Amino acid sequence: MIVAHPEIDNSTTQQFFKEGLAGFDNYEWHEIKQEFEVASERLLLIKADRIVFQFPLYWYSAPAILKQWLDEVFSVNQLDLSGKELGLVVSTGSPSKDFQAGGTEKYAMSEVLRPYEMLANRMGMKYLTPVVIHQFAYLKETDKQQLLVRYQQYVTNEQFASFNGQVNWFVKGLNERVADNPEVAKLLSVLEENEEQRHDLSWNVEQFKQDED
Amino acid sequence: MIVAHPEIDNSTTQQFFKEGLAGFDNYEWHEIKQEFEVASERLLLIKADRIVFQFPLYWYSAPAILKQWLDEVFSVNQLDLSGKELGLVVSTGSPSKDFQAGGTEKYAMSEVLRPYEMLANRMGMKYLTPVVIHQFAYLKETDKQQLLVRYQQYVTNEQFASFNGQVNWFVKGLNERVADNPEVAKLLSVLEENEEQRHDLSWNVEQFKQDED
Repeated sequence: MIVAHPEIDNSTTQQFFKEGLAGFDNYEWHEIKQEFEVASERLLLIKADRIVFQFPLYWYSAPAILKQWLDEVFSVNQLDLSGKELGLVVSTGSPSKDFQAGGTEKYAMSEVLRPYEMLANRMGMKYLTPVVIHQFAYLKETDKQQLLVRYQQYVTNEQFASFNGQVNWFVKGLNERVADNPEVAKLLSVLEENEEQRHDLSWNVEQFKQDED
Repeated sequence: MIVAHPEIDNSTTQQFFKEGLAGFDNYEWHEIKQEFEVASERLLLIKADRIVFQFPLYWYSAPAILKQWLDEVFSVNQLDLSGKELGLVVSTGSPSKDFQAGGTEKYAMSEVLRPYEMLANRMGMKYLTPVVIHQFAYLKETDKQQLLVRYQQYVTNEQFASFNGQVNWFVKGLNERVADNPEVAKLLSVLEENEEQRHDLSWNVEQFKQDED
């Protein structure tokens, strides 16, 4: 997690995410500072499988502090990140409806974030669908919880994009963390049962399809 | 001209443009520094009719020094630039053929520069078609001269986008600067004669069209 925020300690969004990762151990939280050593920053990147830039959107791109870091640390010839994943966690104060043709901002967030997609492309990295948070302060509590789970998976789940990968992540997490709680054990067995049924259904649908052919 | 380059004195491109504006007086050349006063930067912007960001493309956007300046100086509530024009002069080491579907960079330069277009939109400014310079070092001398004239017009000519505006700019420039030279006087009279003929032709074409209706 390459986290870039000029006032990170005062940011509710950033603190929400930071606290949301407590209990996971397969990630590193790295806040960008004004001063840094290029060599050690590069070592950190080389160790990672997935690199995620997390920042608030200022004038349709990352704060200057991340650009400074990118300009110095990233390099086509001196840094090999090919095959790794590049993700983005971007927060903005504008509502999502603004980012479309006919909306106030006119263009989709995919277009706003094009430079990062092109960066990934140039470095031979796989660009992950960004997590974009619109108007965090106005989110309802349940929406915040859903966002948090999505965020946790984006950071810690290798297979976060598929339904199957998400279920496995839940089952693994529940098993590891709280399986001696009878309430949780019940939830866990329901999840596993559902997943088995889903498999059966998928298999049956597949059979029907083959019969039709 | 808001010029942002971390090593401006060593940049052949930037020095080429800077020298190319000698003799014009309706522009201001302003190099962005690490340290600046927000209030005085804003005053400078308020005085201008056309604001042009000039920078080399680093990782598909401006160098960090311009982003820092933008993050602090630009403001929706504290700075009114509505009705002014926003232009870009962007240099890149990659060839223009890379910036298209199927090209190495995959996306057009219009998409790369979307954040600046959106900035203009948000500030109520008119976004001008950017001047993009690909691989300046490899340009032939005649191409450099053509680029220079295009650049001079982009900076100093209110009507740079229309053919008529361009001719007027040439005539005015020649009149002001070198009209006592007989060679130039001849060139000038040819230009003015051509422009008159063009007007006549346009008028005739218009008449034909009306007859057809």
